[in-house]
Amino acid sequence: MAEKTAPKLSAEPPRGMRDILPDEAEMRDATAAAILDVYRQYGFRRVETPALEHIQLLTHGEGGENEKLIYKILKRGAKLDLASARSEMDLVDLGLRFDLTVPLVRYYANNHADLPRPLKAVQIGPVWRAERQQKGRYRQFTQCDIDILGMQSGVAEVELILATTDALTALGLRRLTVRINDRRLLAAMAHHCGFEQSRFDSVFIALDKLDKIDWSGVEKELMQAGHPPAAIGQLGRLIARFGPQGAAPGDLGVMGKDLGAHQDEEARQALEMIIQTLRGEATGSWVITFDPTLVRGMSYYTGPIFEIKSDDFPASIAGGGRYDKLIGKLLGKDVPATGFSIGFERVVSLLMDRQGLRGRRQKRVALIFEERKDDLATVLAAARALRTDGFAVSVELRAKNLGGQLDTLSRHGFDGFALFDGTGQSRLRWFADQEHRDE
Amino acid sequence: MAEKTAPKLSAEPPRGMRDILPDEAEMRDATAAAILDVYRQYGFRRVETPALEHIQLLTHGEGGENEKLIYKILKRGAKLDLASARSEMDLVDLGLRFDLTVPLVRYYANNHADLPRPLKAVQIGPVWRAERQQKGRYRQFTQCDIDILGMQSGVAEVELILATTDALTALGLRRLTVRINDRRLLAAMAHHCGFEQSRFDSVFIALDKLDKIDWSGVEKELMQAGHPPAAIGQLGRLIARFGPQGAAPGDLGVMGKDLGAHQDEEARQALEMIIQTLRGEATGSWVITFDPTLVRGMSYYTGPIFEIKSDDFPASIAGGGRYDKLIGKLLGKDVPATGFSIGFERVVSLLMDRQGLRGRRQKRVALIFEERKDDLATVLAAARALRTDGFAVSVELRAKNLGGQLDTLSRHGFDGFALFDGTGQSRLRWFADQEHRDE
Repeated sequence: MAEKTAPKLSAEPPRGMRDILPDEAEMRDATAAAILDVYRQYGFRRVETPALEHIQLLTHGEGGENEKLIYKILKRGAKLDLASARSEMDLVDLGLRFDLTVPLVRYYANNHADLPRPLKAVQIGPVWRAERQQKGRYRQFTQCDIDILGMQSGVAEVELILATTDALTALGLRRLTVRINDRRLLAAMAHHCGFEQSRFDSVFIALDKLDKIDWSGVEKELMQAGHPPAAIGQLGRLIARFGPQGAAPGDLGVMGKDLGAHQDEEARQALEMIIQTLRGEATGSWVITFDPTLVRGMSYYTGPIFEIKSDDFPASIAGGGRYDKLIGKLLGKDVPATGFSIGFERVVSLLMDRQGLRGRRQKRVALIFEERKDDLATVLAAARALRTDGFAVSVELRAKNLGGQLDTLSRHGFDGFALFDGTGQSRLRWFADQEHRDE
Repeated sequence: MAEKTAPKLSAEPPRGMRDILPDEAEMRDATAAAILDVYRQYGFRRVETPALEHIQLLTHGEGGENEKLIYKILKRGAKLDLASARSEMDLVDLGLRFDLTVPLVRYYANNHADLPRPLKAVQIGPVWRAERQQKGRYRQFTQCDIDILGMQSGVAEVELILATTDALTALGLRRLTVRINDRRLLAAMAHHCGFEQSRFDSVFIALDKLDKIDWSGVEKELMQAGHPPAAIGQLGRLIARFGPQGAAPGDLGVMGKDLGAHQDEEARQALEMIIQTLRGEATGSWVITFDPTLVRGMSYYTGPIFEIKSDDFPASIAGGGRYDKLIGKLLGKDVPATGFSIGFERVVSLLMDRQGLRGRRQKRVALIFEERKDDLATVLAAARALRTDGFAVSVELRAKNLGGQLDTLSRHGFDGFALFDGTGQSRLRWFADQEHRDE
């Protein structure tokens, strides 16, 4: 066999992944810090799991479509037996996590004796999905989740939603709408309309697209899937009356009566409590609304489901719900659980667009000197004094082309500079004043 | 073929990795924030690269032993051809990074047009190495690096060392010793002693163990490796005179003269400037010393090398050096570069031992109420007021066994609690006062 030539090294990151430049990296840091700060105020505790998990856990069936997108890790050393491997799964033992929920469930099972109960957990970190490439979507991205494990009461949902609206408000986001529904009410509605119980999932998947394709599109999809026309018609009437654009939007009580014998009274009361409490708490920056058409993707949800939209962004910027059966399915013992996940990448992109959080950052100053002319100790003392005054200070060697150097510093976000003149003297000037143009 | 039974799901994290409990996770957050804060004050900019890199970059030869420890990622979809794969490398296209230096070099090459020059970069994040298991060492761990790319002057080393001693001091660490040497002086010393140039690496590897096995151990190892006894004897005399326990320890000037024609005068002057400047800057919490026996592991170092030891910890807690040729080797064009890496895991373990940084944390309070007896809106209003006063507040449902609940809250780090009594009244009490024992 001819020997292959060594491939030329590429400076590009792997396909679908990206390098983050300093301005965005600092915005991400500030965003994460602000969110964590609010969640800590609400009593959420930081939890960390490794990026890698056993491949059996990741492919157990609770991750839905995400399980097809796992980056899998080759076995190492003697465990790797290439000759006898018949399938991919013979070659791998670990995978990169595709979300923070499945690892949290394992973490809870592994550490529950050392954890408070209920556990109020906050996680932030990267997840990986080998998705088809799409504009603005990357194969490594950051998730930020809070979860309450071990609390059956709707107080958990109230806390999740309050903490998250507070966190988004702290980031400067306004005009937020919390939409809420309950998987049990969705089921009651489908029952009432006359859909076949074994095919509810297909009804919900179509309904989930209401935002994008309107009722006419949903109706068409339900017809094509062969659902009974009478059931589809009944669903259409309910949505016209109670849906987001309906005549009595958000009227949970009336809708409950409409569903008659099919209504889940316990679910309705729990949801009513959550909505009423949150209506009382809502600040000027957000409102809450009952939306009987809200579905949320994951199949593991069992109770209240919710998401947050901003008038400034087309998609939802946070989503979550109750998943009381997931821990039992994966690890044998049911624990009530509910969680809320902020779309960290979307929030950062919103903030980058509006230059949000910028006002808070430290002023950045360059101290420029000549190595042979200026005394380094003097320069360092000046830097230390400015740092004590709260500035971020970078010591920089004077370039041959000073004008070009100043332009570059300004372009890279420096707010000002001081130039040493060989006598130990310097004066701080601001680029905003454009004084350096006189140099 | 008989079908295999599905493996039982384990709640354990992957071998060699670990779950991080809330107390430590919060200490890690606070430590990272304090370090980043100091580095930002010094003008370092945050840089982020993906966790995954092309396998060709990671296995190019600059990672030394670490290249044997890479977690490799199986190719996906049509790219994976199991039938024709002859070796591991046919199956994989990506790997998890084993350090932050190799990715930074690629990042610089990929983005240099959009980056300041010199680039002062700070990175913090996990790296992965499939190492043999050892107590206290994990296969995923966090590194925290600063690097200055594009600056030839020793001012870069001065900045790296000042910023890092400041960061460690900000964490409350004291009694720090910065040891510094230069790879070119090591080479001059080996030349002067009469070792064979092609075998310098073997000399340095033995010398690197001086701390652990003393000179007698190093001498033995050099003899066994077949180095000339005269050269070994000469090296022993130099170390007895200038080494850390020597008669004239750290006397760079005198040693420079001793090396005669072999001395690298440019290197000596550069190192002298760095040491003299830093002696002037050293605060009460750290000192700097020239150590001609300091080697540092990585083969890519080309100039000054340095590390920091704490009197409270056996191993070094930070290390780094100049690597002017690495960017050229990987990507074709030389760029002067030097970096310093804090052993984040060691620092966190030091701080955990001494309960460091604890004093700074927010007081944590539990508001305990009964869902049927107390008005939730009243409880939430009390929580909001306490948060405004700077407390972290968790709303908790009253357990049947209140005494047990209070004990558990105290054990999980709550500082106090307030109990609602059905009338909307509550009073904040501190566990430190042990008042709840009267309940």
